[in-house]
Order: sequence, then C-alpha cells, then structure tokens
Amino acid sequence: MSGSTFGHMFRVTTFGESHGGGLGAIVDGCPPGLALSAEDLQPDLDRRAPGRNPLGTTRREADEVRILSGVADGLTTGTAIGLLFDNTNARPKAYDEMARLYRPSHADYTYQAKYGHRARSGGGRASARETVARVAAGAIARKLLAEQLGVEIVAWVDQVADVVASVDPGTVTRAAVAAGAPVECPDAAAKARMQAVIEAARGAGDTVGGIVRCVARGVPAGLGDPVFDKLDARLAYAMLGLPAAKGFDLGSGFAGILLRGSEHNDPFVTDAAGRVVTTTNRSGGVQGGISNGMPLDFRVAFKPVATHFKAQQTVTEDGEPVTFTAKGRHDPCVLPRAVVIVEAMTALVLADAWLRQRGQVGA
Amino acid sequence: MSGSTFGHMFRVTTFGESHGGGLGAIVDGCPPGLALSAEDLQPDLDRRAPGRNPLGTTRREADEVRILSGVADGLTTGTAIGLLFDNTNARPKAYDEMARLYRPSHADYTYQAKYGHRARSGGGRASARETVARVAAGAIARKLLAEQLGVEIVAWVDQVADVVASVDPGTVTRAAVAAGAPVECPDAAAKARMQAVIEAARGAGDTVGGIVRCVARGVPAGLGDPVFDKLDARLAYAMLGLPAAKGFDLGSGFAGILLRGSEHNDPFVTDAAGRVVTTTNRSGGVQGGISNGMPLDFRVAFKPVATHFKAQQTVTEDGEPVTFTAKGRHDPCVLPRAVVIVEAMTALVLADAWLRQRGQVGA
Amino acid sequence: MSGSTFGHMFRVTTFGESHGGGLGAIVDGCPPGLALSAEDLQPDLDRRAPGRNPLGTTRREADEVRILSGVADGLTTGTAIGLLFDNTNARPKAYDEMARLYRPSHADYTYQAKYGHRARSGGGRASARETVARVAAGAIARKLLAEQLGVEIVAWVDQVADVVASVDPGTVTRAAVAAGAPVECPDAAAKARMQAVIEAARGAGDTVGGIVRCVARGVPAGLGDPVFDKLDARLAYAMLGLPAAKGFDLGSGFAGILLRGSEHNDPFVTDAAGRVVTTTNRSGGVQGGISNGMPLDFRVAFKPVATHFKAQQTVTEDGEPVTFTAKGRHDPCVLPRAVVIVEAMTALVLADAWLRQRGQVGA
Amino acid sequence: MSGSTFGHMFRVTTFGESHGGGLGAIVDGCPPGLALSAEDLQPDLDRRAPGRNPLGTTRREADEVRILSGVADGLTTGTAIGLLFDNTNARPKAYDEMARLYRPSHADYTYQAKYGHRARSGGGRASARETVARVAAGAIARKLLAEQLGVEIVAWVDQVADVVASVDPGTVTRAAVAAGAPVECPDAAAKARMQAVIEAARGAGDTVGGIVRCVARGVPAGLGDPVFDKLDARLAYAMLGLPAAKGFDLGSGFAGILLRGSEHNDPFVTDAAGRVVTTTNRSGGVQGGISNGMPLDFRVAFKPVATHFKAQQTVTEDGEPVTFTAKGRHDPCVLPRAVVIVEAMTALVLADAWLRQRGQVGA
Repeated sequence: MSGSTFGHMFRVTTFGESHGGGLGAIVDGCPPGLALSAEDLQPDLDRRAPGRNPLGTTRREADEVRILSGVADGLTTGTAIGLLFDNTNARPKAYDEMARLYRPSHADYTYQAKYGHRARSGGGRASARETVARVAAGAIARKLLAEQLGVEIVAWVDQVADVVASVDPGTVTRAAVAAGAPVECPDAAAKARMQAVIEAARGAGDTVGGIVRCVARGVPAGLGDPVFDKLDARLAYAMLGLPAAKGFDLGSGFAGILLRGSEHNDPFVTDAAGRVVTTTNRSGGVQGGISNGMPLDFRVAFKPVATHFKAQQTVTEDGEPVTFTAKGRHDPCVLPRAVVIVEAMTALVLADAWLRQRGQVGA
Repeated sequence: MSGSTFGHMFRVTTFGESHGGGLGAIVDGCPPGLALSAEDLQPDLDRRAPGRNPLGTTRREADEVRILSGVADGLTTGTAIGLLFDNTNARPKAYDEMARLYRPSHADYTYQAKYGHRARSGGGRASARETVARVAAGAIARKLLAEQLGVEIVAWVDQVADVVASVDPGTVTRAAVAAGAPVECPDAAAKARMQAVIEAARGAGDTVGGIVRCVARGVPAGLGDPVFDKLDARLAYAMLGLPAAKGFDLGSGFAGILLRGSEHNDPFVTDAAGRVVTTTNRSGGVQGGISNGMPLDFRVAFKPVATHFKAQQTVTEDGEPVTFTAKGRHDPCVLPRAVVIVEAMTALVLADAWLRQRGQVGA
Repeated sequence: MSGSTFGHMFRVTTFGESHGGGLGAIVDGCPPGLALSAEDLQPDLDRRAPGRNPLGTTRREADEVRILSGVADGLTTGTAIGLLFDNTNARPKAYDEMARLYRPSHADYTYQAKYGHRARSGGGRASARETVARVAAGAIARKLLAEQLGVEIVAWVDQVADVVASVDPGTVTRAAVAAGAPVECPDAAAKARMQAVIEAARGAGDTVGGIVRCVARGVPAGLGDPVFDKLDARLAYAMLGLPAAKGFDLGSGFAGILLRGSEHNDPFVTDAAGRVVTTTNRSGGVQGGISNGMPLDFRVAFKPVATHFKAQQTVTEDGEPVTFTAKGRHDPCVLPRAVVIVEAMTALVLADAWLRQRGQVGA
Repeated sequence: MSGSTFGHMFRVTTFGESHGGGLGAIVDGCPPGLALSAEDLQPDLDRRAPGRNPLGTTRREADEVRILSGVADGLTTGTAIGLLFDNTNARPKAYDEMARLYRPSHADYTYQAKYGHRARSGGGRASARETVARVAAGAIARKLLAEQLGVEIVAWVDQVADVVASVDPGTVTRAAVAAGAPVECPDAAAKARMQAVIEAARGAGDTVGGIVRCVARGVPAGLGDPVFDKLDARLAYAMLGLPAAKGFDLGSGFAGILLRGSEHNDPFVTDAAGRVVTTTNRSGGVQGGISNGMPLDFRVAFKPVATHFKAQQTVTEDGEPVTFTAKGRHDPCVLPRAVVIVEAMTALVLADAWLRQRGQVGA
C-alpha cells in the first residue's frame, strides 16, 4: 500500500490522467485459473462511465478495456494482468483561465505545493477519471470472490443531501439498485426525492453530496489482521482514497455512540446450520478487526461536488485574488457513479484479505 | 502497512499481549540526530496508562518504557529503535468462564475463526494494552515533527454519548485538554456533563461511547500521495485500526453532505505572510488527498465499551447458548485514554508522510 | 519488492509477455521536474532490442515506447509514469511440439508446477522480452541519477565462456563499450576472441554463457541500509532476478577468499579534495552494506542459453520421455544484450536507495 | 523487504546492537498452531554463539532467547512473536582509539557518511551480533518448513582460503556437518586442512575467508515469482545481506559459464514415483525463478575477516592519516559460525515463499 499501488497479495497498481495517452492498471497476484475476459469487466465499467447517467455529465467516454497480459486461453495465468484504456478525448481542453488559478476544494493548490507544478488541464492524476482503473481491477476481484467464496457486494446511494433512503441491508440486491437508476437507490420513494434534489441543484448551478452504503454478504469469518491492519481499517483506507470521500463508518458507526454498551453489543447465537451468528449487526461484520461472517456493512460520505457554476473567490498562482465561474460539463452529484467504485474497492480489499488469510492459515 | 507493521519510511512494528513476557515496538527509519530518551516518551505513556484516570479502570500498570537500541549519546542513530515494556501483571487472570464462551462484540469469536484457537486470557493481541506500543512510537514521531516542522497535534474528547463539546479547533491547546481531565475535554461545561454521563453509566454497570476529535497544526502543504495513498486515507486507516473505533471523518465529514457545493468549498486567499490559505476549513486540511497547510481536522467515533456488567446472551465454543455477566475492572468509557492514542497514530502518519515527501521531492 | 514490483520509493511495476497485447511498466515515485521524453529512453531500448546485434537472433522488434502519463510539458509530474510497448509480433508462434513438453532448463515445468498450467507460446512471463520494461524504467532512473548526482553506470561483457577481458573499471567508458560492439566488450583483443567463440557456438548449434561486469561511479557515500537491506543485497536481488543469471559478486567477490584479511582490506586515505577514499576497492564500493563513495563494482554470471539446437532428452506433460530439437531463431549468447539490462537494474537500485536516503536523512 | 524487515508474508523485523539494552526480533505472519518454545530455538542459537567454537573468539555470550508473545499453550497463536535477547556484556568497551578512526573495510566510515555520526563502540547495528535475531527467527521458519513440508536445510563450510571440500550435496546431513566441528565441514580431510589454515592465520595475526554452501531438500516445486521476485533473487538478497558476504551463486553458478548450453541443461525424466525430476542439478533447484522440486543448491562467499592484528593504514574522522593495530578478541574466520546463519536466512526465504504460494494458488 504505497502511492499508486493497493494491496499486499492481490495488488493493483494504476497510472493515467484524464488527458494523455491512456490509463491502465496492473493486477498482480491474482490466482491462476479464473475465467476472465474484457466482457467480464465491461458491465461495471459501464456503470461508472460518464454520460450514461442522465443526472451526470453529458460528456461520454467509451471506457473499453483491453486485457494486454495475464490471461491465456480465457483463464488468468497467475502472472501480472495488464489493463489498458485509451483516452478517446485526449486533447487537453482549453482550461486557460483555470490553469492560472487554484479552484477551491480541488487539488490544484495541493499538487502545486507537493510537486512544484501542476497538471494544466483535466486535474491530472486527481481527475476522477483514474477510478476507471479501479473499477476494472475491482471487477476481477469481484469475480474471484463470487466464484471462490460466493461473496456478493452490493452498494447503493443511501443519502443525497438530506434525503435518506430506507433499505434493508440484509436483502437488498444488485438488481434492486439497478432498478433505482439513475440514482442507484433501491428505495423508490427516496430515489424520486433524491432525483428532484439533484435536478434542483443542477438547475441552480449547484451541487450536492451524500452517502453510499455498501454491504458484502458471504464474507467468511477470519479475514483481516490484528493491530494496525484490521479489516475495517483497510476498508476505511480504501474508501477515503476515493475522490470527494470525507467520511467512513462501519456498522453502528457514528450513530452507535448514542447507545449504551448493553444496547450496542451483538448477541451471539447458533443458527439452524450450526453456525455462530449474531442477532444484530452493529459491529458491521467486523469484530476486533476481523470479519465475523456477518455482512460487512459500512457507509462512505461524499462531499458536494467541488465544481459548481456559481461565482467563487480564489487566488491565482501569483497569489492575486480573483473571482471565477466554472464552465463546461460537470456532474451535480457523484453519488450514482460512486456506487460501483465503492463496490470495486470493497472487492479489492476482500480479495487481498482472503489471499492473505489463505497464505497464513491455509484453506 | 501489513500486519503488525505501520508506515513506509517511518515504520513501526509491534508485538505483545496483555499477559505474557512483555510488549514492545521496533521503530525503523527514524532520522538520525533526534535527541531522545525514555523521559521523552513517558508523559504520553502516562496519559494512556490505566488506573491514572478516576473514570477508568482501577487496575494500575507502570508502563515504563526501555529504549534498547537505536539511541547513542542521547541521539537517535538512524537505525532500528527497540522499545520494551514489561508486563508487571503477567499472570493470566482466572478468566475461566469467559475462556469457554464468546464475549459479544469482542474479538473472541473472530480470533477463533481466523486462527483456529484463541488466547484464553486477556484478549491476546486484541487487548487494548497493545496501544502502549503505539503511544511510545508515536511520541518519537511527535517529537520529530515538533522539532523539525513545528507540528502540533492536539486531540480531545469531543462527544460522550449525546453530550457534545464546543471547542475551537484553531486555538485549542494541549494544556486546555489536560485541564479538562479526567475527561480530556477542554469545554468545561461539556466536560462536567460528560463526567456525569460516564459515572451514571458506571453506576448502572453500563458503558458509553463517543468521539475524539484531533487537529494537527503546522503540517506543511504537500504531504500525502495521489490515488490510493491519500493523506486522509492513511489517517482513516490509522484510526480505524484503533480498538473500538467505528468511524472517521475529516473536515465537514458526514455533516458536510447537508451543504451545497457553493456552501462547502473553501475559498483561497493570501494571508499577511503571502501564504495561500483558505478562509474556511471544510476540507479538514486535505484536498485531493494532499495536505494544504491548513490544520488537519478529523473525528474518530468509538463505540461504547463492549465489556459491561449486565447479563448478556451468547454461545460457548461448542455453540451452546449461555448467559454470562462480566466480572473484574473495566473502563466504562475509553474516550479519555483514547485521546493520546489518536494523537500518536496521527504523529506516525505525519512522520511517515513527511519522510516520503522529502524522499521524493526533497526539502 | 514483491512480485512484479521493484523498489520502495522509486517503484517499478511491469506486465506483459512476448505474445499478447503489449508490455509495459508503471514507474511510481519518480521525483517531479525531470525532463523526460520517449527519446530519452530509446537509446537504451535499442541496445536491448533483438535483431540489431549480428551475434543475436535475427528476429527484429521495434521496441518503441510510449509514455502514457506522468509527464507534462516535457517534465515528470511526480505521479505515476505509464510506459507502453506494443507487441508487433503478437501472433503466437506454432510452438506445437514444445507446447506439450518441458524444455530443459526453461521455466516450462516450474510455471506448470506453480500455476497449474503454463503459457503455450513464447515463454509467457518468463520470456526475456519482459526485460524491455526494465530497460525503459531503468533509463528514467539513469537520467535522474546522472542529472541529480552525476552518477555514471557502465557495464560490459567481461567474460564469454573461457575468454576473459581485461578492463580497467576505473576508467572504462560507455563509448568504449559501444566501440566493442557487437560483443559490448571494450577490450578489443578479448572481444575478437569472444566473437569467435560465440560464432563457433552458433555454428555448432550450441550456446555459451559468461559474465557481465558493471561499475557505477559517482555514487554518493551513504546509500543502502543496515541488516537485511544492504545496498549489495539489493543489487544481488536485482541481478539474480534477470533471466539466465546464476551468480553475483561484488568487489573481490569469490576471488577474494584466496586473500588474507591483511591483503584484502582497503586502506582509507584522504584525497586531494579532502574526501575519504580507499586506495584499493576490494569492497566494491560497499562496506557494511552502505556505499562508501568508491565505484560500485560487481559481476553477474549468466548461464549458457538454454535453447540450443542439439537433440535433448526431456518429458512431456504426461511424463513420457521424448527427444526434441529446438527450432526457430535464438541467440547463442545473451551477454551483449544483457549489458544494458544490468545497467538498468543498477539504476533502479540506486535511484530507490537515493530517495530513501534523502527521505530519512535529508540532503 | 525494507530496512530491518525481511519477508512479505512471513516477516521478521529486528533491532539491537552489540552494546546496549538488548536485541530482538518480531516474527509476524507465522501460521498458528506450530508447537514452539525457546528450547526449539536454542540449538541453532548455540551453533551461532561466539566462544563455543575453539577456532573463534574466546568471548562468550549466553544468547538465551525469551519468547515474549505470540505463543500460548505451547503453540503459535498466529500473531506477532516477540523474541528478546539480553546483552550480558552491555557495557561499552573502551574502544577509544578506534572511536576516532575508520577501521578499514568495516562500516565505520559508511555509517558516518550515511547518518552523520556513528556508534562509538561495538560496531552498532553493523555488529555481527545482530545475526542472533536472524538465527532465532530462522529457527521458527525451519521448524515450520520441516513439519509442514518436510524441508531439510543443510549448510556447511565448503571452502576456506584455498582449501576446497568435496561434499555430496544430495546426501550430506546436518549430523555430518556437526561431526565436522569446529569447522562445520563434513569432509574430514578438508576439515583438517581448513583447521590448519585457520590456526595458521590466527597465529600470524591474520584472517581468512571462504565459502558456505547450502542445500535445501524437500522444497516443493512452485515457490518464487516471475520477473523481479524470483526465488534465487530472494536467496541472493538474503545472503548478500549477511555481514562479510561478497558473492552468491546457484547451481552451476560462476563455474557454469565454462559449459556449453548442450552440456549445461538439466534433462527432465520421470522418477519411479512418477514425479518429474532432472538428472543433473546445474539449475540449483530453480528454473525461471521458481523452484523445480530439486534441491536448492547455492554458495555464499565470505571475505576474510576485516579485523586482523597487523598494522593498518587509515584516517581519523578528521581525515588525518594514522596507523593502527586492532586489539581484543576476534574470529580469524567467520565461516563456521556463518553456517547456521545461512541456514536461517534460507529458512526465512522459503517460509515466506511458501506462504505466498499458498496464498495465491492455494494448497
């Protein structure tokens, strides 16, 4: 876990910017023998793609992935998998004004401070376009987990601004989330209100934030490691690494602090199959940093999109105050597209944790 | 960042359980030439020590650290620093009943599931006693950051159950927090109510949770890395790795989703010294995953302590349902002792990020 | 350093096989501000390319690199650099017979044993073609080291079969090595004999091995780390990772064991510039695992090429004994092409060590 | 693999110097359920201990290890194992003269150059005493490999100065090596001559070097990874990290370059049990960087000990030329004590490789 690399045994390294020659990922450490083709990755890539979502930007990108290595005869070989995306829109835009000022709450200033210069167009490495590589790599991990362990990962938009959905994390399906398009919210009533909020924001030249909630069912007990490298710590790391993410909580999370310990603990019982389960899941599927076999259940808070169309105060690179107003096409709300990205990162965390557990303990 | 090791350039590896021969840490990668003695570590260790805090457990442990290597003539040598704590209370307690059942919302069941067995006493590696090693290592990082960069890290108890403090993150001092003992809350009114809530919980044989908030001032702009390894992602990883932590947010965090983008963005201005600063800090000091020179400002949610003294339902290792009631001495609230641990992990994240930045970019 | 990733601060991750959609590398952690274009990489790539060398295979590959990311306005940005090579010869060859048997001293059997299957053509990830990605990444590191530190890395063919060159490691230049084409041996007399040996082997349908020796001058004292991660250990790791490498020694190396300690030690003196230097360099530029400012000086042994054209005994995948004779075009000697690869790995080791030293100690 | 940490899944981190409060290691990632006590580690520690060997230094150290954590009820728990050694001889010696000059071919100068200062006594982290921690950790790995896979690791002194032993790597036993005490050479005739050479060197106030050869039998096929992280690369890294090591080769190694390809390749056959084996082992048990099931077979060259008792030229820290003559007790030859250290590092490499293979591929 350093720089552009994620994971220990199932390792993903990415490169690429919104403009330039392309983006890609290397997935190293994937078990051999997994049936894999570009078609397996495309559905998740389509869910992330801009322009598909009527609530999002109207800019369309193809996001077709090519698998350059690591697959032979339709099966993963066990060696490094090279994934490549072309930038169909590789010509840098005319971001002339923006190239000389620091857009508020973007990475313009921090990249400048870090590297002594910054990408003049498209946000460079801070562009949300980098998430395309995550989604492709995550789709491999998702397929591995589904086939080997029966893990099912489902995320959805749980809140937009002050509109909160009501969704049963134990039963919600990916189909229900898909039916909640274009907001990716399986609660139809909440979805309608969310859609109205997003469209109102767009109409006002403004933007909104919200919460993506994610569950992973079928995760075996025993994943994660004591002390620094707990499973929930890895999930938090994965999620706070997403563009615009500002918060993470698991199980009862921030709300749990209003409970007493006697109200909060999850009682253990034995289910009909003789497995030890808990009757509640305030732990969110993790106890002592290790999965307990109950569904992982966590939330990720995303701030309102930084690019809105109202006038803003900022400074130029020379420190001169300036007012500017953004132009172009931008999502008023990243939440619907973030759903598949949250799922992808969850899959990467779990695939890595599973291989590590199998390495240390076997089976 | 794997298993019991934290960090990339400033690396900490720990070992040890609440019972057994001792605990310790190896700090590798610390710059040479830092004046260091055990006395530098002791104040933070004392803040963490159980038994000091009248709201906590009455069990007292010495927590005196020995520096076994890596320091010569009072200065760090640049080589591995060995830190050792004796277990003064090394005799395993008579946890007979508990050794046969899974305590709800503890790590008993997950360790069993992971390793095929579990420590019979004291929680093994899941014991909060492991944090003593974090605090010692963090105190080294804190001293390094203070002397080299002028970084000041201040955490406090910001919420207990439903009692919320009102604290100015821009001006709060460590002295003010210390004055808020035994709750470590610098808002005197809130502190009094928190103390009442904790004592009421104790009286009821119950426990409470809450929030620790932390600021780090003087952090240079430019720390953190794009994509997976953002500074806020590393902080989230560090904090969710703490015992009982269930959530993390930065800047506006979960509350920020109620704002529109036009309300949320932090305007840039140039201050009197010619530095680029923001007039608000909803970003929490991090933009695009990289520090912007404003104070880091984040919160960590801790669940109510799992060990309370009311009867609980659970199962034995054989899957038999059983009722049990905890015995012994336990904190009704971990928040006051968690303050220094949150600070320690923050220091470890920042020391590592600074050395990485200096390595890649110089200066 | 795991799997397809090399390095800690200056990190290279590669993918790709001899057949398939392409090969590439991601270079992460490179300092910003380095002037870089594909033209900077091409000279070293040309030195590695097959078909250029009249002693080598007649198969020609373009090996033109594209830089997909991490460079803007002609300078590295500090973010991940994506490098891509197309496979111009991507159609799998008709390796029918070989696809069913284990070629002796190739990776066919071990890949099968490891992964449960193996690439049916071209050696998969074990193909020497993967070294194209190393050379491109190494060329970036070489440029960084040359510009920032004045490091000069020169390797040459020092031995082929029993023909040993006589070369002064203190003064040999890259130009002298280039003048020693096609053997890359700067000792003209030895070169002529080496050439004769290689051509004789080719005429006999056989192959030869030899030694590449490498010096790095201008390496600052202080690179490398104590205990496990010594600079010479990292060099050995880098070199034994090369295809066909079977040995490594540094300074006096294996020959040094014939000396007594009183003959072997390198006396320290102060040179005219006031620097501490040694009058001999039996240490090979490394003492206690850390560079001492003298030239790094080491050798890498390469076995004779495994693919020769005499009949060989082996077994099929079903374990049946079989005689086979290789077909196609193959180098009788890899040494000349290995020279630039040894240099590339040396540059990667040094760039990483320098950034780590700068991170921990500054300067 | 960075700094004082070795390994990826089976990870060892060490600390400690020859003087000071003690040395130790943390072994993280060891599988649970391995029967382990300090008694399991003591035999290898005794083989390393100085003073036991009549050819070595007369300084005696106890080297008794304490296991502080990670073992419960006599079994490893799967969590971090803390190992501690006291320094019985912790008082810094009066190295007054040496503290002001750079001993030739020691780490005095390079530590000074790296860290800006150096340990004034006992060599600091460069002391060979650090190997005690490697041996203890390696003994755990050895036990794991023996019990789980039947791996047997045998090293011996194969050459001292110009005396070369003749030993069959296929059949040599640890008992035969032990019978070769005090030289640890199982060839009785060679041992006698080695002993004479060592004693002659001691008598002359001089020192000698040599070669340790090591075989590992029972290693399953499939360990190691393609490209950078080959099994032989990891072995080379492990061995060049040993104090005084100057070279490494595997199988035919440096001698193999005198063979033609047709002479060098190892023919595959099927043995009586139906397993694919080779009739020769010039590959040294590794092909394409991955174990092939034949014995690992490699050599490590150790230079003559740097501390001899003849007058030497060097400079002081101020750059003034000075003649000095070492005092005290020192080994004239490290080879006998290096045998167990080579075995320990081999075990660490193999345990890590096995867990990684089990993680990625299962079984």
